[in-house]
Amino acid sequence: MNKRIGKQTVRIISEPRIIATASIVGPKESKGPLSEYFDIILKDDLNGKDSYEKAESNMLYTAVCESIKKANLKETDINYLLAGDLLNQLTSSSFAARDMNIPFLGMYGACSTMTESLSVAAMLMDGEFAEYVVAATSSHFSAAERQFRFPLEFGSQRSPTAQWTVTGAGAMVLGKIGKFPYITYVTIGKVKDYGINDSGNMGAAMAPAAVDTIYQHLKDTGRSPNYYDLIVTGDLGKVGKHLTIELLKEYGYNIEKNYIDCGDEIFNNEDQDTNAGGSGCGCSAVVDCGYIYKGLLSGKFKKVFLVSTGALLSSTSSLQGESIPGIAHGVSIEFES
Amino acid sequence: MNKRIGKQTVRIISEPRIIATASIVGPKESKGPLSEYFDIILKDDLNGKDSYEKAESNMLYTAVCESIKKANLKETDINYLLAGDLLNQLTSSSFAARDMNIPFLGMYGACSTMTESLSVAAMLMDGEFAEYVVAATSSHFSAAERQFRFPLEFGSQRSPTAQWTVTGAGAMVLGKIGKFPYITYVTIGKVKDYGINDSGNMGAAMAPAAVDTIYQHLKDTGRSPNYYDLIVTGDLGKVGKHLTIELLKEYGYNIEKNYIDCGDEIFNNEDQDTNAGGSGCGCSAVVDCGYIYKGLLSGKFKKVFLVSTGALLSSTSSLQGESIPGIAHGVSIEFES
Repeated sequence: MNKRIGKQTVRIISEPRIIATASIVGPKESKGPLSEYFDIILKDDLNGKDSYEKAESNMLYTAVCESIKKANLKETDINYLLAGDLLNQLTSSSFAARDMNIPFLGMYGACSTMTESLSVAAMLMDGEFAEYVVAATSSHFSAAERQFRFPLEFGSQRSPTAQWTVTGAGAMVLGKIGKFPYITYVTIGKVKDYGINDSGNMGAAMAPAAVDTIYQHLKDTGRSPNYYDLIVTGDLGKVGKHLTIELLKEYGYNIEKNYIDCGDEIFNNEDQDTNAGGSGCGCSAVVDCGYIYKGLLSGKFKKVFLVSTGALLSSTSSLQGESIPGIAHGVSIEFES
Repeated sequence: MNKRIGKQTVRIISEPRIIATASIVGPKESKGPLSEYFDIILKDDLNGKDSYEKAESNMLYTAVCESIKKANLKETDINYLLAGDLLNQLTSSSFAARDMNIPFLGMYGACSTMTESLSVAAMLMDGEFAEYVVAATSSHFSAAERQFRFPLEFGSQRSPTAQWTVTGAGAMVLGKIGKFPYITYVTIGKVKDYGINDSGNMGAAMAPAAVDTIYQHLKDTGRSPNYYDLIVTGDLGKVGKHLTIELLKEYGYNIEKNYIDCGDEIFNNEDQDTNAGGSGCGCSAVVDCGYIYKGLLSGKFKKVFLVSTGALLSSTSSLQGESIPGIAHGVSIEFES
């Protein structure tokens, strides 16, 4: 059976199982509507550390360890850890991996990292290179804000299109067997840049990449949007979600009925002052590991298409006048419980 | 046939071929002893751009395009581009990928990125997810120096253990068939940190990771160091190379006779004022794509083990008092011309 389907999609024939997930969030995220789906809630977003960066790294470490524990495995059972984050040089992931005895592949797709690492993990499993792989990612509001935007103490005014970086980490353990949600297709995205240069409007910057990956996936597989109970983008927020719906209509696909965006779901945007919604690698990580995975296990969803979305800017690229390229990677997950 | 060998190594049964490589270097690198092996030499390290970051991104773009051209392929033939670099949020790679119509996976292993991307590329080929994959990476002295250390204008004194970031980019195209050097084994490394916190002595920080990966590879495959014509670490420089030799002796392996380090080879360190040698993702990229690949094609080498090495620090992690974790990934390449 040919694994390559159409232009950009691959079939994951052995259907690796997601045998466990773990999610950890900060205090603000625990006050949002998806609170009940998260495994660990921090009381203090410093997480007992002396910097936000160290707090984030420890969150990622905790999520990975917790996911391995929930899978009834030991660290030494895991053949690869695939992880990445928003901090310069992936420090959260690298320092988390330092404390583990697992071969480590650092991945960077900005906020698309959850489905990027999950896609590659699924391909490594299907290629028979591993018995167990962990895919993970994290973000932290305070670490991201001061790296990408302004000092926290500055208290800058945020635009209505701005999003709030989620403080959270998620990890998924892939295994070969068992009655668990399984991965059937992967669509790796291309970098798309429609010239948006407002780093306070990431949703608009990432929407074209989400549209391209969803369109390619549906075209490659011959599926209609209705095949899925849910199409789940990463962190487009309200603005990017609206654009994605409208742009996909121009390609002949209406996804309105069964489409959610993790960034649009994780906060009560009006009460929580999160403007256009959540963002950050941790956003799709905790929503996918929490709400979506638990929904698959409970039978609420049977077929989902996860499309985490990343904005590939740096503060240097913005200062040098560059626009914001976006990317999105898609993973089909199915389960008949 | 089981693909997993020992603890950490996988056999790449289909032996994907490296059907073409391309390398591009800056003016300083062209004055070093390996000059004749590089494909493109820049006269000006700004590369016609208005910033060093844009110059680096364009070098990477050029290396990828050139490698595809040398393989007699078109951009649309390539199923995946796997690339990464040292700049915050992989801006060189992301912006290079923006100008190409190729699904993109961002990888980060600091200066280990050449063998990290090549390892994953080989596994994706062997897993039958692709017909052609490009693995690539880059670095730029001036972009790295001002990001990680001091403003260029500051003219800081460099310690004798300091290394000089290579201005260069390399790309390898993997295909399935043809009489070309082929990949037989991959050993993905673990993060190792022996507490070195001097960012002017990266060789010492990375050596334990190189030692661990070389040791695991030899143990997993049952090979002796003499199996290889050449074991080639990434950018340990003089200091890290010496440490690697000594530490491996403690594990019972003497690699002295057939071991080189790309960082130790690329410059005439005494004449070119590069202290302990070259470094950066581009260092092992251009040496592997140039000197090593051409040596395989010509029959000078028949069996090589490439081990690019990365220091997983950021300027923030150093300021927060963290030591420097290292990582190294190994790829066996063989060819009977």
